[in-house]
Amino acid sequence: MKIAVDVMGGDFAPKAIVEGAVIAANQLPEGVKLVLIGKQSIMLDILRTMKYPAHAVEMVNADDVIEMGEHPTRAFSQKPNSSIGVGFKLLKEKQVDAFCSAGNTGAMMVGSLFTVKTVGNIQRPPIAGFLPLKNGGYSLMLDIGANADCKPEVLAEFAELGSLYTKFSFGIENPKVALLNIGEEEQKGSTVVQAAHQLLKINKKINFIGNVEGRDLFDGKADVIVTEGFTGNVIFKMGESFYDYAAEKGIKDPLIDRMNYEVSGGSPIIGIKGNVIVAHGISSPEAIKNMIFLAIRQVESKVTEHIIESYED
Amino acid sequence: MKIAVDVMGGDFAPKAIVEGAVIAANQLPEGVKLVLIGKQSIMLDILRTMKYPAHAVEMVNADDVIEMGEHPTRAFSQKPNSSIGVGFKLLKEKQVDAFCSAGNTGAMMVGSLFTVKTVGNIQRPPIAGFLPLKNGGYSLMLDIGANADCKPEVLAEFAELGSLYTKFSFGIENPKVALLNIGEEEQKGSTVVQAAHQLLKINKKINFIGNVEGRDLFDGKADVIVTEGFTGNVIFKMGESFYDYAAEKGIKDPLIDRMNYEVSGGSPIIGIKGNVIVAHGISSPEAIKNMIFLAIRQVESKVTEHIIESYED
Repeated sequence: MKIAVDVMGGDFAPKAIVEGAVIAANQLPEGVKLVLIGKQSIMLDILRTMKYPAHAVEMVNADDVIEMGEHPTRAFSQKPNSSIGVGFKLLKEKQVDAFCSAGNTGAMMVGSLFTVKTVGNIQRPPIAGFLPLKNGGYSLMLDIGANADCKPEVLAEFAELGSLYTKFSFGIENPKVALLNIGEEEQKGSTVVQAAHQLLKINKKINFIGNVEGRDLFDGKADVIVTEGFTGNVIFKMGESFYDYAAEKGIKDPLIDRMNYEVSGGSPIIGIKGNVIVAHGISSPEAIKNMIFLAIRQVESKVTEHIIESYED
Repeated sequence: MKIAVDVMGGDFAPKAIVEGAVIAANQLPEGVKLVLIGKQSIMLDILRTMKYPAHAVEMVNADDVIEMGEHPTRAFSQKPNSSIGVGFKLLKEKQVDAFCSAGNTGAMMVGSLFTVKTVGNIQRPPIAGFLPLKNGGYSLMLDIGANADCKPEVLAEFAELGSLYTKFSFGIENPKVALLNIGEEEQKGSTVVQAAHQLLKINKKINFIGNVEGRDLFDGKADVIVTEGFTGNVIFKMGESFYDYAAEKGIKDPLIDRMNYEVSGGSPIIGIKGNVIVAHGISSPEAIKNMIFLAIRQVESKVTEHIIESYED
């Protein structure tokens, strides 16, 4: 198994990324290799000072970088030799099993859509977030930022994809799928959410349990929580700020500790024909290490192959 | 000053409401009276067992009740003798200075729109929530649930109303107004939020400081945070669930403690020609008492008169 990592993406790239990759390299399971993508000379300079098993780390040169603030579509098409461009090329050619980046999320979405492409008729692949639960587990929330505006049909796609992901990745039979809303009743909420409720209710591919509200998020009422990327993004960032606040104040708690973005390390883009994980721009080495292990678990679970199969029927 | 309280509205009405009113009645400032609205016989039954200064509590009979699940517009027009209907009648006739209810929020919105009416050309009065800050203060977030779908123009109205409210109620000169978004850059976010950003940028009535994100909510970067009622509602309910969780786990912290809905007790509907406060359906006596004191402070500040004046110019 080969996990590709974009060394140039992220606020603290390339140093934090290489450091995280090295921590991971020292703990990799048998048969897993990392493929670091970036400017070779820079990677070598950083790696020179570090200890890691050389057989577990390959390097692939990429001369260009897509910066955090660049226009995703334009940058992706104009910079085929960027670390993100090269990563998607390797992924598409199946030279690597997964591609991870803490860089320009928009460019990662563009690569997902136009290089590896979506499964079936999926219109808008969501970014899925791992929402920590009081009981120690996670719910999958999607979307958490890729799609700020969603049609009801797109929310229904998220529901199906989330159901498949939790089934094959978390091993949950018949996952409970809920719609995030501002009331329990089906006529509550925005026009889009009301229409989505009706689509989810009649969708036979999912086990729809109805609406959940902001107060239910950590209760584990649902395995999958469907929402537009706008509210999903606000929820995750608010959770992170709780963790930061608690850490500042010396509050230690198992639920709050898992609101730290570093713990899951990244978020998969799902509904595409490949394993793509994106991470926070501010990612620390610890976060990068955890993103790599998330990618390994995802590849091992074959969740992406299962999702592709489900849409081929 | 007279503060009217709907005794019949709320999950634990009438008992919790009367109990909260009695706690308040025992602490009222000079010259403030409560006007309890509900079925007289029920109110008398509960009050009989309680100690309170009789001169500070009046009762007004209302034979009907708008239930929590009823269709707001239909119920409001078909039940003029409901406690909510009677409350708005008293408010419109200026027999009371404020009207508070933990009952059907939709019916409270309908009463606000069609009885006391909006100021100026305001289309959609928001419900404003008090978001606790790390520094001990509050930001005003609006809307937190009345308007799940908002046009950009409506978000601009929220910005103006929030600015006026914090100026006259919190005493902040030139309040900082921010737009909740999923990135700092103005081209981020949903179509509506992007358009709203442009409207806020050119609005000379407010001090617009740009976007804030989910991670900034408790930092006090802005005095006013503008958002659609969907996301605003999710944020407040998520905050409440944090408080509940922390309370369960014995975590005591000044910020988290103020995420308890009971502390502010209620949320004003603003942009209307009267003082209307709505509260959580689950309101406890403590919450009701605090809602009454919120109403008293709001009446004392004359914020509603100031807002009306601003729109008459």
